[in-house]
Amino acid sequence: MNTTPIKITLIGHGNVGSHLAQYLNASGVHISHVFSRSENKAQKLSERYGSLVTSNFNDLPAHQLCLVCVNDHSIHEVISQLNENTPVAYTSGSVPLSNFERNGETGVFYPLQTFSKGKQLDISEVPFLIEASSKALGEQLFSLASMLSKKVVYANSTERSKLHLSAVWTNNFTNHMMHIAEKYALQNNVDFTLLKPLLNETVRKLDYLSPLNAQTGPARRNDDSIIQEHASQLNGIDKELYLLISKSIQNTYSKDEEL
Amino acid sequence: MNTTPIKITLIGHGNVGSHLAQYLNASGVHISHVFSRSENKAQKLSERYGSLVTSNFNDLPAHQLCLVCVNDHSIHEVISQLNENTPVAYTSGSVPLSNFERNGETGVFYPLQTFSKGKQLDISEVPFLIEASSKALGEQLFSLASMLSKKVVYANSTERSKLHLSAVWTNNFTNHMMHIAEKYALQNNVDFTLLKPLLNETVRKLDYLSPLNAQTGPARRNDDSIIQEHASQLNGIDKELYLLISKSIQNTYSKDEEL
Repeated sequence: MNTTPIKITLIGHGNVGSHLAQYLNASGVHISHVFSRSENKAQKLSERYGSLVTSNFNDLPAHQLCLVCVNDHSIHEVISQLNENTPVAYTSGSVPLSNFERNGETGVFYPLQTFSKGKQLDISEVPFLIEASSKALGEQLFSLASMLSKKVVYANSTERSKLHLSAVWTNNFTNHMMHIAEKYALQNNVDFTLLKPLLNETVRKLDYLSPLNAQTGPARRNDDSIIQEHASQLNGIDKELYLLISKSIQNTYSKDEEL
Repeated sequence: MNTTPIKITLIGHGNVGSHLAQYLNASGVHISHVFSRSENKAQKLSERYGSLVTSNFNDLPAHQLCLVCVNDHSIHEVISQLNENTPVAYTSGSVPLSNFERNGETGVFYPLQTFSKGKQLDISEVPFLIEASSKALGEQLFSLASMLSKKVVYANSTERSKLHLSAVWTNNFTNHMMHIAEKYALQNNVDFTLLKPLLNETVRKLDYLSPLNAQTGPARRNDDSIIQEHASQLNGIDKELYLLISKSIQNTYSKDEEL
């Protein structure tokens, strides 16, 4: 039995970094070093994970896997500050691995999920997409992800980018639809909680039907008079959106006989 | 103990009508008469519910509640064919009660839910919105809906119409986002099932956070370079939609400091 815990270095403690730190720690991985410029955060992380927290890149161990959980635009800059030989993995859905040319191994450790502060989730159900510049790092990252999740897959940068774009529709855009629904309900003193069962059923339905076959409503029925009536109740970009999404639904089913 | 079952007449056997018939029947309501022009359907309904099925409006009982589950554009025509004194309720989210001027009582029995053929659901969780031209019919419909659901409320035509518009965003538009995600995934050989945990979490999150606070992703981070990169992978109305929804998200958070 291997009694030496896996050690990693963590950079970035936003939504993704803080969730991963917590789940990795719970899986027995020791986050031995954390890079942070905030003294307040440093204190908390040090207490929570027994990490050595530093604001100096030179204090990080040169040959230990470093997980970089910063936003897409900062990844390059952060990695360039690290020792050339440090094995690195970043957590972005969009940034291609070919962006990096370095001596050390470089990889991707991308959880296909939406993380919000304070909202726990079942990490074992979260797909992880793995890519690496070497077979050895790929296997190391695959094995690390498998400590957290049942759904670990290798995906190259193109596949990952396409999944990321699909994820934007799946999460960001559906969530924004809900935001507009809630905003409209609040503006009009409508009880938004009445819509919760509808939202739940919308998703449950997709266990049985494809979204293509699950569609209902005015645009699906090609009911222009209701669409116009609804649009007349909206303003600005909400109205534009209502009409464009309705048009897109109408186009999708325009060859169908049955309305 | 009342041993005489409630009897109703049913017109319309599409998604809404067939689901309601089934749940009402299971709750002990006797669908004594069904109007149908299809002989095939008539036979099935007659067997399933012990209904007398007719294609002649004059065969329907004049003083028995008639549930009209037809599409919005046919409601007026159907009701005009019925005996002037027949109490009627229709199931539309949009058609105002003031559209009808008749001797008989007229009401609304609107289930705020998406029904698809062959997909069962828990009717006890479905909100029913009730409105009627008389207090007596209102109470009758409220009581009928309460046999099916724990969530029955009175709502006037304006409130119902506003909830219906919110429901379009909640269900139809979120479902269409999922359709585009799936279409894009299929076109690009991406495994769509990897996105299911993300969709589930998107909805679960809303038990804890408002959609406003749950938002993540490129538009939320105001990341124009990823938005443009994604848009370049899309065509036609999908591209238009991607850019307009992203713009709407960016507008929503444009006054925030934190990205």
